[in-house]
Amino acid sequence: MTIARDRCGLAFTLAGSDHDVLLLSALEDVRWCTGFTGSNGWLVISRESTALLTDGRYTEQARAEVPVSIDVVECRSAGAMVEALGRVASSGTIAVQEGDLTVSAWRGIAKTVGRRLAPASGELADLRRAKTDSEISIIRRAARIADDALASCVELLRPGSSERLVRDALESRMRELGADGPSYDTIVAGGPINSARPHHRPTERTFQAADSIVVDVGALVDGYHSDMTRTFFVGEPAPEMLVWYDTLLEAQSTAIDLVEPGRAVREIDAACREVLTRAGLAEYFTHGLGHGVGLLIHENPYINQSATAVLRPGDVVTIEPGLYRGGLGGMRIEDLILVTESSHENLTSSPKDPRCPR
Amino acid sequence: MTIARDRCGLAFTLAGSDHDVLLLSALEDVRWCTGFTGSNGWLVISRESTALLTDGRYTEQARAEVPVSIDVVECRSAGAMVEALGRVASSGTIAVQEGDLTVSAWRGIAKTVGRRLAPASGELADLRRAKTDSEISIIRRAARIADDALASCVELLRPGSSERLVRDALESRMRELGADGPSYDTIVAGGPINSARPHHRPTERTFQAADSIVVDVGALVDGYHSDMTRTFFVGEPAPEMLVWYDTLLEAQSTAIDLVEPGRAVREIDAACREVLTRAGLAEYFTHGLGHGVGLLIHENPYINQSATAVLRPGDVVTIEPGLYRGGLGGMRIEDLILVTESSHENLTSSPKDPRCPR
Repeated sequence: MTIARDRCGLAFTLAGSDHDVLLLSALEDVRWCTGFTGSNGWLVISRESTALLTDGRYTEQARAEVPVSIDVVECRSAGAMVEALGRVASSGTIAVQEGDLTVSAWRGIAKTVGRRLAPASGELADLRRAKTDSEISIIRRAARIADDALASCVELLRPGSSERLVRDALESRMRELGADGPSYDTIVAGGPINSARPHHRPTERTFQAADSIVVDVGALVDGYHSDMTRTFFVGEPAPEMLVWYDTLLEAQSTAIDLVEPGRAVREIDAACREVLTRAGLAEYFTHGLGHGVGLLIHENPYINQSATAVLRPGDVVTIEPGLYRGGLGGMRIEDLILVTESSHENLTSSPKDPRCPR
Repeated sequence: MTIARDRCGLAFTLAGSDHDVLLLSALEDVRWCTGFTGSNGWLVISRESTALLTDGRYTEQARAEVPVSIDVVECRSAGAMVEALGRVASSGTIAVQEGDLTVSAWRGIAKTVGRRLAPASGELADLRRAKTDSEISIIRRAARIADDALASCVELLRPGSSERLVRDALESRMRELGADGPSYDTIVAGGPINSARPHHRPTERTFQAADSIVVDVGALVDGYHSDMTRTFFVGEPAPEMLVWYDTLLEAQSTAIDLVEPGRAVREIDAACREVLTRAGLAEYFTHGLGHGVGLLIHENPYINQSATAVLRPGDVVTIEPGLYRGGLGGMRIEDLILVTESSHENLTSSPKDPRCPR
């Protein structure tokens, strides 16, 4: 089963598929295929027609957003949407996205529509992986906005500023620079407890001398995300932290150097961990090395110890090793990397000097 | 099967259940039960013990957030989490939340853990419905912040201001007033096309004379949401729009008057639609009347034509009729209503005069 978008709009092909109908329920896939940006919609692709099922909040909007070849069907309840699916997909097996559909929705469709449901082919999970030039250009812009916002807020990283103050300044600056908003909940985490929590939520805690501060910030532009992390030290950190930082930087750089088409992601993760292992720090790196970024902030390909993906041109991934020890502190360095035809390009340009401006 | 939180923390009871283990996978339920605020966590409740499974990004944080009686188990991949579930829930049937779990996750658990999965009892869907005094106090604060932010931004609703400008000002003001952020993507929709789209995303379009402007804004405080909509006219709108507005206000007021314990939500929806039907406007009200609000912005009980819920004390719901006609414009009026022991209390206090300040 293949789905392709042509330059004018989209073309769906069910050729090579055993299934008669494909139900796309994952909103990011629906958006990618049609341009529809609402929060509720199912795209139903059959050999004869393509229909977008949505509710009354989005009917007008959907008609303006999607190509005219797609029928927009207004459904006034979740039950009505399942019934409409039965009408639109009038015969044969329906392939569904089992990684998106809840068990309840699956049961509801099977019962109401009364037809065989089958898992959509695995390729669909990589539908949005290879970014087009226009997607790359949007992601590049999103990455640039985060870089510029961080550059203009870095002077706030001083004793007395709170995590929330910096978070608010970053998000507000990204908006001024043209972002639709933050790409995810911006992380600003300072000091021995908070910076040791990889996904800390900013608090009123103010920075103090010797704090490490982790700033994880990205911009949302036209539905596409960017993702970047930098770590800073307020004044002089514990000597141990400086050693950690240099090691982490080497680990990240080693990983980035390996990003190229044909590379198994697990090798990249392993090479990064190897640097940390040699320094006796691997136990403090408690999460995966990275993930794809696009219409979702976390998407394929994931980069970790058990991932099996192989990189391809057009993949946009994060490389973000971190080290965390509660009571001492934490750090993370993250860049957004585009896999090019022969190598890679780093879309993040913020400097990696961890010293705060004085 | 019952789950209750006591004042000190939580108490889980599987009494009355046919199942040996309950897997809570819906993050909002996990948060409600334990205080855990991370973005990945499963709560596994068995007759012997309770465990929170999460990944390395959240281990430290989870140990600080959840009661000491809950074991925090760090899992370094999605696969490891399923394996940990098998160890923690060592025997018997596992009840799961079929409305939350994807088909893939369900299949993965069934295959790896090798035990019978059953749907958790339906009561679980109402676990978080009856808000406690402390939850109500947080939601009240969130509603107040949105009211105050709107009051301080209403002067921006004038010709020349853009939708985005107003959106940015509202969100920034809510932060200043103590919100963690917006409760959802703030809607500012002006003019004959945009205001006729119930869930429009703010653009650079600037307001013009005779525009109707729909502002749908809420604050997020400690994980709890508020939700409110007001409609404004720039200068003199089409006479038809004034008639629409008066009718809509009457419809909303009729609905709010019916909010009380024991009331079937469908009656409220019907009474509201009846006012619009008498005025010949029902066809322009294209969505449900309201929904519950709490740790999720949309949760039980939903209020629409096919809903079967009956209101209870502690429910917090929106009442938000709207009228939309592309080319003419749209409007919505939404309040957040608490169901009290004998009646209701309106948590929204923004005025409903649609004229913009001059």
